[in-house]
Amino acid sequence: MLEFSITPTHDPDLAARLQRAIDDKTKPRGALGRLETTALCMGLIQRRLDPRQEHPQALVFAADHGATRRPGISAFPREVTWQMVENFLAGGAAINVFCRQHGIPLAVVDAGVDHVFAPRPGLIDAKLAFGSNDYLQAPALGRKLAVRSLATGAELVRRLPPETDCLLLGEMGIGNTASATLLTHCFTGAPLEAITGRGTGLDDEGLATKRRLLETALVRGGVPANPIDVLAEYGGLEIGQIAGAMLAAAERRLVILVDGFIVTAALLVAHALEPAVLDYCLFSHRSQEPGHRLQLERLGAEALLELDLRLGEGTGAALAYPLIVSAAAFLREMASFSAAGVASGS
Amino acid sequence: MLEFSITPTHDPDLAARLQRAIDDKTKPRGALGRLETTALCMGLIQRRLDPRQEHPQALVFAADHGATRRPGISAFPREVTWQMVENFLAGGAAINVFCRQHGIPLAVVDAGVDHVFAPRPGLIDAKLAFGSNDYLQAPALGRKLAVRSLATGAELVRRLPPETDCLLLGEMGIGNTASATLLTHCFTGAPLEAITGRGTGLDDEGLATKRRLLETALVRGGVPANPIDVLAEYGGLEIGQIAGAMLAAAERRLVILVDGFIVTAALLVAHALEPAVLDYCLFSHRSQEPGHRLQLERLGAEALLELDLRLGEGTGAALAYPLIVSAAAFLREMASFSAAGVASGS
Repeated sequence: MLEFSITPTHDPDLAARLQRAIDDKTKPRGALGRLETTALCMGLIQRRLDPRQEHPQALVFAADHGATRRPGISAFPREVTWQMVENFLAGGAAINVFCRQHGIPLAVVDAGVDHVFAPRPGLIDAKLAFGSNDYLQAPALGRKLAVRSLATGAELVRRLPPETDCLLLGEMGIGNTASATLLTHCFTGAPLEAITGRGTGLDDEGLATKRRLLETALVRGGVPANPIDVLAEYGGLEIGQIAGAMLAAAERRLVILVDGFIVTAALLVAHALEPAVLDYCLFSHRSQEPGHRLQLERLGAEALLELDLRLGEGTGAALAYPLIVSAAAFLREMASFSAAGVASGS
Repeated sequence: MLEFSITPTHDPDLAARLQRAIDDKTKPRGALGRLETTALCMGLIQRRLDPRQEHPQALVFAADHGATRRPGISAFPREVTWQMVENFLAGGAAINVFCRQHGIPLAVVDAGVDHVFAPRPGLIDAKLAFGSNDYLQAPALGRKLAVRSLATGAELVRRLPPETDCLLLGEMGIGNTASATLLTHCFTGAPLEAITGRGTGLDDEGLATKRRLLETALVRGGVPANPIDVLAEYGGLEIGQIAGAMLAAAERRLVILVDGFIVTAALLVAHALEPAVLDYCLFSHRSQEPGHRLQLERLGAEALLELDLRLGEGTGAALAYPLIVSAAAFLREMASFSAAGVASGS
C-alpha cells in the first residue's frame, strides 16, 4: 500500500549539458547565483534543457492536535484552526493574497480539523479524524492512522491534473509547531532546547512551559527507530498527509516547493522513508523558528528567501514561487553569447 | 539647477496607524517578517494606509569607462557595453526576461556609451560623452559633467508618466565595478582591499592588478570632501545619472528599488547630497561583491534577497519586485481578525 517509486534525479550527462547552457547565457559565469543552481535542479527534475514552470498547485493541509486541549502548547486557541480554514475559503488569509498575485490555484485540505465544514469549492475533505490524540497521554496518531495519513496525502497528489509541474505545500494547525518540534528532535537528534521556538508567539514563560510539556511527551513515547512510528507517536494528520503528498509528488517528478518549519518536519518523515524525495525539493525560505535552521542543515538544504517569516500556510512557498519561475525563464529565454553577438569574458 | 525638494517620510502618527493595520491582519504579530517592515515603509512613502504597487518603471543606465582602455580593470572587453545594450534592446538579456515576467516596462538609457546607436523604441538617448576619462590620468568626469549627469538622470525621472509608483534602477558599463569601488572607498572610508571584488569574474592575479590600479588612481585624485567632487573624480556617466534619478524619484515620492553594488554606489552619492533620499529606498538584494555589504552597513540597510547575484542590469531589483507587490497586497487585501471571525492570540 505504501509503495513509492522515486527515481533519483542524478544524471551527470544532462547536468553537464544544463551547465553548459547556463554558462553560455549572456552574463558572467555564475552571475545569477542561486537562480542558476535552481535552474539546474529544475532541469534535472523535468529531464529537459528548457525547464518550464507554468502549472503550480498549492495545497494547504489543516488538522487539529490533541495536545492543544491543555494550555501551554500554542499562543492561539484550538478553534483558530477551523476559523482560519474558513478564512482561507473566504480568500482573506495571507496565502490567498500571494496565490492570487502569482496565479497559483489553491486548495485547502481538511486532513483532520476538529470541526464539521460545509462542502465548498476549494475545500478537499480528507478528514481522517477530528484531530490527533494528546501525545502526552498516548500516541498522537497510532500506526494505522499514520499510514493512512501518508496514503491519503499521496492519493490527493496522484489525482492532480496531468499538467501540474510544481506543488506548493502549506499547513494550518494550532499546535503543529510543537508536533513538528518533536518530529525534528527524533529525526535530527538535536536537543529539544535548541529546536523549541515560540510558534505563533509564546512569551518566555510560555516557551519554558512548552519545553517542559514536550520533554514529558518524549519520556512517554521515546524516540522510535522507524519513521512511521515517529509520525505515529508525535505527528499530526496534516503533517502525515503532507509527507505522503511529497512522496507522490516526487514519484510524478513534480518540483516540490517546501515551506517552513512544519512542512520541513513532514519532509523529514518523507526523507526517512525515501531519501530520493529530496532531489525534487526546492526550499522556499528559512523561517524565524530556530528548529528550521537545524532541519535545513540536516537535509543539506539552502533556502531561497530569508525574510523572518513564521506564518506557515505555505506563504513562504508562494512568495518564493516567482523566483523558480525566473530560474526556468532565464534558461529558456536568455540569449547566448554567440546568438547575441556579445564577446564573452577572458 | 541641482535643487531637490525631498521630504523625509517620518510621520509617527501614520506609522502607528499602519502598524495597527498590519497587526490586525489574520496572522500572528510580526509573522510576515520583512514583508511587514516593507509594507510600513511603502505606506509612509505613499502616505496611505493601503499602499499600492502597480506602475513600476525599470531604467537601465549604460556608459563606458575610460579606465577600461587599459588592461586589468574588467574581465570583459570594453565593447561588451554596447553589445549588451543591443542585447537589452533585442530582449535577450536577463533583465528583459525578469521584466517581462513581472510586467515591468523597461527602458535603456544611453548615458555615455562609446558607440553610436540607431534610435529605437526603448532606447533613451541621454549621452553626455562617449564614456568617461581614465581616472588614473585625469578626473573621470570633471565637475561640469558630474553635475550634468545628475541633472540629466533627474530630468528623465521627472518625465516619467504620472502614475509611476516605483523606480527600478539598473546599470550596464564594463569597468563600473571599479568606479563604484573608488566611490565606495570615498564615501565609507573602508579600505580598498575590503571593497575590491572580482566584478564580472577577475581571477586572483586580476584582482591584485585591479587593486593596484585603483590605489594609483587614489594617489592621483585623493578623497574629495564634496560628494559632487567624488563623482567628478571617479564616477561614471551612468552612475551620476542613476544618482540624479534617485533624487528626482524621492522628490516624486516613488519607491526606489535599489539593485546591487554599482547602483548602491550611486545611492552613496545621492545620499551624501540629500540624506532623505534613503527614506524612499528599498534594497532588493545583497550581491556577492564584497563592497556591497559595506555599503549596506553604511546606509543601515537590509536587503530583501540574498541569492549570490552579481550581474547588475537591475536584475536583483526585478527579482525582488514581486516581494514589494506582496507587501502592499497583504496590507490591502488580507482580512482583519474581527472581520474574519478569527480569535486573536493570547
